[in-house]
Amino acid sequence: MAYDYLAPIDDMRFVMHEVLQAPKAWQQCEGRPEWADLDADTVVAILDEAAKFSREVLLPLNAPGDQQGCTRHADGRVSTPTGYREAYQAFVQAGWPALPCAPDWGGQGLPMLLDAAVREMLIACNPAWEMYPDLLHGAYETIKAHASDTLKQEYLRKIVSGQWLAAMALTEPQAGSDLGLLRTQAVPQVDGSLQISGSKIFISGALHDLTDNIVHLVLCRLPDAPAGSKGISLALVPTVLPDGQANALSCDSLEHKMGIHGSATCAISYDKATGWLIGEAGKGLAAMFLMMNSARLHVGLQGLAHQEIATQNAERQAWDRQQGRSAAQAGTSAIAHHPAIRHILLRRRALLEAQRVIAYRAALALDLSAHHPDAQVRQREQAMAAFMTPIIKAFFTQQGFQGASEAMQVFGGYGYVRELGVEQTLRDARIAMIYEGTNEIQAIDLLQRKILADGGATLKAWMSQAQQEAQQCRQAGLAEVASRLEAELQQASAALEDLLARLPQRPENSLHVADDVLQGLSYTLMAWAHALSMRCARQSTTLTPAAAQAKQEVHGYGLQWLLPQSGVHWQRVRAGDLTVPPLQPLH
Amino acid sequence: MAYDYLAPIDDMRFVMHEVLQAPKAWQQCEGRPEWADLDADTVVAILDEAAKFSREVLLPLNAPGDQQGCTRHADGRVSTPTGYREAYQAFVQAGWPALPCAPDWGGQGLPMLLDAAVREMLIACNPAWEMYPDLLHGAYETIKAHASDTLKQEYLRKIVSGQWLAAMALTEPQAGSDLGLLRTQAVPQVDGSLQISGSKIFISGALHDLTDNIVHLVLCRLPDAPAGSKGISLALVPTVLPDGQANALSCDSLEHKMGIHGSATCAISYDKATGWLIGEAGKGLAAMFLMMNSARLHVGLQGLAHQEIATQNAERQAWDRQQGRSAAQAGTSAIAHHPAIRHILLRRRALLEAQRVIAYRAALALDLSAHHPDAQVRQREQAMAAFMTPIIKAFFTQQGFQGASEAMQVFGGYGYVRELGVEQTLRDARIAMIYEGTNEIQAIDLLQRKILADGGATLKAWMSQAQQEAQQCRQAGLAEVASRLEAELQQASAALEDLLARLPQRPENSLHVADDVLQGLSYTLMAWAHALSMRCARQSTTLTPAAAQAKQEVHGYGLQWLLPQSGVHWQRVRAGDLTVPPLQPLH
Repeated sequence: MAYDYLAPIDDMRFVMHEVLQAPKAWQQCEGRPEWADLDADTVVAILDEAAKFSREVLLPLNAPGDQQGCTRHADGRVSTPTGYREAYQAFVQAGWPALPCAPDWGGQGLPMLLDAAVREMLIACNPAWEMYPDLLHGAYETIKAHASDTLKQEYLRKIVSGQWLAAMALTEPQAGSDLGLLRTQAVPQVDGSLQISGSKIFISGALHDLTDNIVHLVLCRLPDAPAGSKGISLALVPTVLPDGQANALSCDSLEHKMGIHGSATCAISYDKATGWLIGEAGKGLAAMFLMMNSARLHVGLQGLAHQEIATQNAERQAWDRQQGRSAAQAGTSAIAHHPAIRHILLRRRALLEAQRVIAYRAALALDLSAHHPDAQVRQREQAMAAFMTPIIKAFFTQQGFQGASEAMQVFGGYGYVRELGVEQTLRDARIAMIYEGTNEIQAIDLLQRKILADGGATLKAWMSQAQQEAQQCRQAGLAEVASRLEAELQQASAALEDLLARLPQRPENSLHVADDVLQGLSYTLMAWAHALSMRCARQSTTLTPAAAQAKQEVHGYGLQWLLPQSGVHWQRVRAGDLTVPPLQPLH
Repeated sequence: MAYDYLAPIDDMRFVMHEVLQAPKAWQQCEGRPEWADLDADTVVAILDEAAKFSREVLLPLNAPGDQQGCTRHADGRVSTPTGYREAYQAFVQAGWPALPCAPDWGGQGLPMLLDAAVREMLIACNPAWEMYPDLLHGAYETIKAHASDTLKQEYLRKIVSGQWLAAMALTEPQAGSDLGLLRTQAVPQVDGSLQISGSKIFISGALHDLTDNIVHLVLCRLPDAPAGSKGISLALVPTVLPDGQANALSCDSLEHKMGIHGSATCAISYDKATGWLIGEAGKGLAAMFLMMNSARLHVGLQGLAHQEIATQNAERQAWDRQQGRSAAQAGTSAIAHHPAIRHILLRRRALLEAQRVIAYRAALALDLSAHHPDAQVRQREQAMAAFMTPIIKAFFTQQGFQGASEAMQVFGGYGYVRELGVEQTLRDARIAMIYEGTNEIQAIDLLQRKILADGGATLKAWMSQAQQEAQQCRQAGLAEVASRLEAELQQASAALEDLLARLPQRPENSLHVADDVLQGLSYTLMAWAHALSMRCARQSTTLTPAAAQAKQEVHGYGLQWLLPQSGVHWQRVRAGDLTVPPLQPLH
């Protein structure tokens, strides 16, 4: 049985239209009047096209690209696997890169939520390939928000169209999670440009053969910049200069990685390369965060996409593979009948469908934060997206890896063999827990910047929305669902209030339970997504009765069997008596 | 920083001599009077030699063997990676294969517990290589217990010495977890031999270049055998016949796998190959189980070994890598100071050190079950080993994979790159959750064959031993430790009694919570191992005060931070009201 992908368009449509009621939200976005015309049919037509491109063009390149990998030639050129360039050209010609970018710069101005669904399909079918166009949108936003008009005129349209691609050059050998340690130098020149010198590592897509020019956004230090993160500036450094000359940068090596072999991960030397400042000197990190936030949501979508393709293939395998006897049947039966396999499949479905609700809710928050007429709504939705982003990045990528592993378990020995495909998903999925800020960094970001920084205001606003959902569930006759959600909200609030109350005495405490806060809140958000989805499935006018029933069963399973996991995390967050042993040096 | 391995001999000695008091147990084994001389010095001398061989001979072949893999030549020969054959010859010359085999057949007659510690080191340094000699001991036991005297005389000494190796030929394309479906035919010949025809897949080490002959133990069906598992017989099928002719079997292909590339995973065709029956016709599965039980314990040791090498490299990385600032320090500091990293390292240490206690306890049970003079003790220890085996196989391999993944997280981006080594451990570790009976099969084995089959007698015997340990902890001044262990035992007993009481009404219930029973009991065993280790560290006369302190802190961490996870599993085992949605066919 070949590894395949059937785009979950019905599920996507259900989440976008019935669960989140996106068209109603889009209609309110006066900044984008054309969104009022985005009815279900239009959205599904776009999704269908993206599904076709993903399955017919990208999926066939996925396993061969893994086997072939990228090549660094003797002259320093980097080539991607066979077929990647042609697929990218087709992608550009169809206008996909410009989907969510502003019409002012040649974009199609479509919602981020629609872009998220399209991206989910591209990633599922070929995560290594998708990484090349993935950074485009973040680069576009960063340049649009912070660069000079000259730079915008020179670069934005070509990035929006996909004619040129972009790369984020952050990490240096001594500076990974702590970017404050970076050393790359930027020396101002008389013509206003910068001369950039330094070494960067782990730069995805810094050099490749998909486009003729690649725009690097490089974190660097101006002379006399203060040490640490306040001395960091951001420079735009293209591989080809406006006069057509090659810029002074080179790829020293490509990394040999566990997975995403089709994505070129470069070590880059800048040797007096020419660049230009983006934004203010010393404000590089803040400018780059705009790019990183969008990148982090995309990485979360990777986790979701890995789960979808791995799970649906495991489902097909479970119905295909005949082994042993079920309690009810003589002879062999599909392994889907066996309790252990049923639990794996139910667990994966419940987790992934709830995650899709959360991811798409965050994408919708970005749409509202950009284009809603009410400034309060814009601000609230901006905060909501910022709050959800570290949860999506960390929890979804952990589940992406875990989900691929559980799917492999359904395949048994066949799953460990390359030809079946799921082992590639497992290898490809693992990096998402590390890059764009490790999952441990996300937990700190969530607790310190998204919860403590505003005194818990955004968290409480979200809790209160979830509380309203519980009431709606009760009114819809889902009393047990309402109770489970309320109990979870109560448990989460109590634990977090405990933690906040103890913080002044034990400030280090927050770091010790940051991971548990992120895990606990992930389950709290899942509980909300399960309850909301159950209610919407029950009230749905578009799902078939069988589909509505299946959705309720899957989300009910999540509430019953999976949600109890949150208790362990809240218990640790609450337990003021837990001690952490003093640090012991290596013996 | 290169991936290295410093054998944890101090930890091994502590578990063997102080925690389990193995020398005292060995002295009671009158069947092996020479064990009375196995004092700490002798044991450590043997471990030191094995550590030297593992690190100096096997570890340097680990990454190159992964890159090179095995090769199937045009003439059907299979060769292992460069250096594997020479390493194996050195292994044989040093007498390692014969370590735990009976002196009657040329073995050294040393305890299984010592063999387990030696094996842990071999696996840590090169899991793919270790798979070749790994099956030797199971084949030896199966042949010794079930084969005719003629076959014993012909094969046993050469297997014990390591001159010939062995392979288990079980799986067929349509018969994986359900061996009852296998079709390989065995036709009796007038000379008493069998003519074997059929296809087997996923056969580790079926063909290779380490030895001149390889003894296959093949599950097959005699003519007119009943369908299902009662019609299965076991045959011995050597690759080279006693007259020096090649047997009629061939390697159709080698699998391309996610990991353990140095281990040849063969698809084998038997085309009227010559073999001989081992044991009675139709009793093949029972005979094979002897081999599988030993193999399952070894697979559990793989999980432990993967955790040890991954964790100790992560520890070194954490002390080596400078990033960011800790709360207490200005400038950069080792990432070991950062709470998220400290928790990963403490968690991994606590888990792996408790697992070592459990694995070694099971190996000691095998020693006592074989050589203790008291038949009741032999029977009790046999049951104890059988009870612990599925837990060790499933929980340890899950932790082996998880532990490698958490170690990778400590390395950050570097961990995803091949050169650093930890990604190979992650890939190599994943198969252990699948082969020798998937972890889901282990959970069913535990619940049905090890708990329900004797009405919970072995489980209760173990619980009562653990209860005594809690009392000893209390007497030793570890009241909180005692309370935590008692609470866990209480929780586990209550949940399992609930389950047993409900079973007559809902027999399918046991399969629905089998995984939770295995997970829950894993934590119960861990709680016992933590408590026992803490008490022994506190009372130790050989550990330095710093080492004794460190051990208490690590195990105390396990009891405080990790043990709460069991509650989720016991909650599901108890919850009679949890429903499982009816099976939905694929939509």
